[in-house]
Amino acid sequence: MTQDTEDTVRRSIGARRNPASQEAILDAAEAVLRELGIAGFSIEAVARRAKAGKPTIYRWWPHRTGLMLDVYKRFKTARAFPDTGSLRGDLIGFLDNQLVGFWKNSLCGTVYRAVIAEAQTDAGAAEALQAYQAERKAVARQMVERARARGEVPEDADATLIIDLVVSYAWHQLLLGHLEEASTKTEAVVDTVLRGVPGYRA
Amino acid sequence: MTQDTEDTVRRSIGARRNPASQEAILDAAEAVLRELGIAGFSIEAVARRAKAGKPTIYRWWPHRTGLMLDVYKRFKTARAFPDTGSLRGDLIGFLDNQLVGFWKNSLCGTVYRAVIAEAQTDAGAAEALQAYQAERKAVARQMVERARARGEVPEDADATLIIDLVVSYAWHQLLLGHLEEASTKTEAVVDTVLRGVPGYRA
Repeated sequence: MTQDTEDTVRRSIGARRNPASQEAILDAAEAVLRELGIAGFSIEAVARRAKAGKPTIYRWWPHRTGLMLDVYKRFKTARAFPDTGSLRGDLIGFLDNQLVGFWKNSLCGTVYRAVIAEAQTDAGAAEALQAYQAERKAVARQMVERARARGEVPEDADATLIIDLVVSYAWHQLLLGHLEEASTKTEAVVDTVLRGVPGYRA
Repeated sequence: MTQDTEDTVRRSIGARRNPASQEAILDAAEAVLRELGIAGFSIEAVARRAKAGKPTIYRWWPHRTGLMLDVYKRFKTARAFPDTGSLRGDLIGFLDNQLVGFWKNSLCGTVYRAVIAEAQTDAGAAEALQAYQAERKAVARQMVERARARGEVPEDADATLIIDLVVSYAWHQLLLGHLEEASTKTEAVVDTVLRGVPGYRA
């Protein structure tokens, strides 16, 4: 390895996030969110709590939305996608455990509302949210792919649309503050998406 | 009429919005939104443009979100809900003309994104948005009620859920900045909500 290559490697490793400090900052961010709420959440407050320099945090998270989204993701990845053996069961589990029920029973609903809000006026936040959504939906579509393999839906079933309809319903109820009511309708939502309106005839 | 009653009447009339000035302020608000965008929109900028006092505006619109929502509504009410003779046609028209297509081709998408964003952290904005949604959805449900009367859907069809699924899809795409793509999928969305996933078998 030439000196030049070594330098490049070293620089690129140095530029990567350091997992230990990253966890410490996420811990601090979570604590700030719990104690001060969205209104009191800032890179400054997190730096103070983490006993870290603001530049360290800004290097990894250029704005507060990205940091909030990473706190949110940490909770999310602790929850596996359901694999119940049927598409209906998987989608109901997805709504109950990953979306409506998840937001209703934790700080995460409030954090995610703030992330979505900030993505409406800040281009960086919008990009972070779009990337997160794309990544999550790719995983969610595996539920439809498994259903295809089982022959529950045809080869050409529109996995993107099925997942979008389920996620959209959850977002809408979150953003209107109607999670309580929505949590009683998850079966009806999934049954409508899969089977349509019962008794409908054109 | 006693003096007392007269005073009460006068006071309550005085407290009502004055339609002429209200229109002038909405005109000014729309002009500010067009010229300066969401970031430059403030009660102060609208007052300057309307040559009105800030207190006059604040008396009618306690915060900028309510004023933005009223500019948005003015565009909205100019568009009638579709009545095509079929629920499928009505819901596609609803998505195309009142939601996805409406937001895509006008300032309204940007304004509505800002309204939804502000409703996530401001209680007054949240109330205004909830009230507006409740009012609009009551009108939208008439599409399902007409379908009931025609025998297209059974008496116990869940009109709230049908409308919610359609509106939710549109909101989600708006908030992710995916209206362009969504505008090509409005028929597929309505067909899935009404008939389910083609070829689905549990």
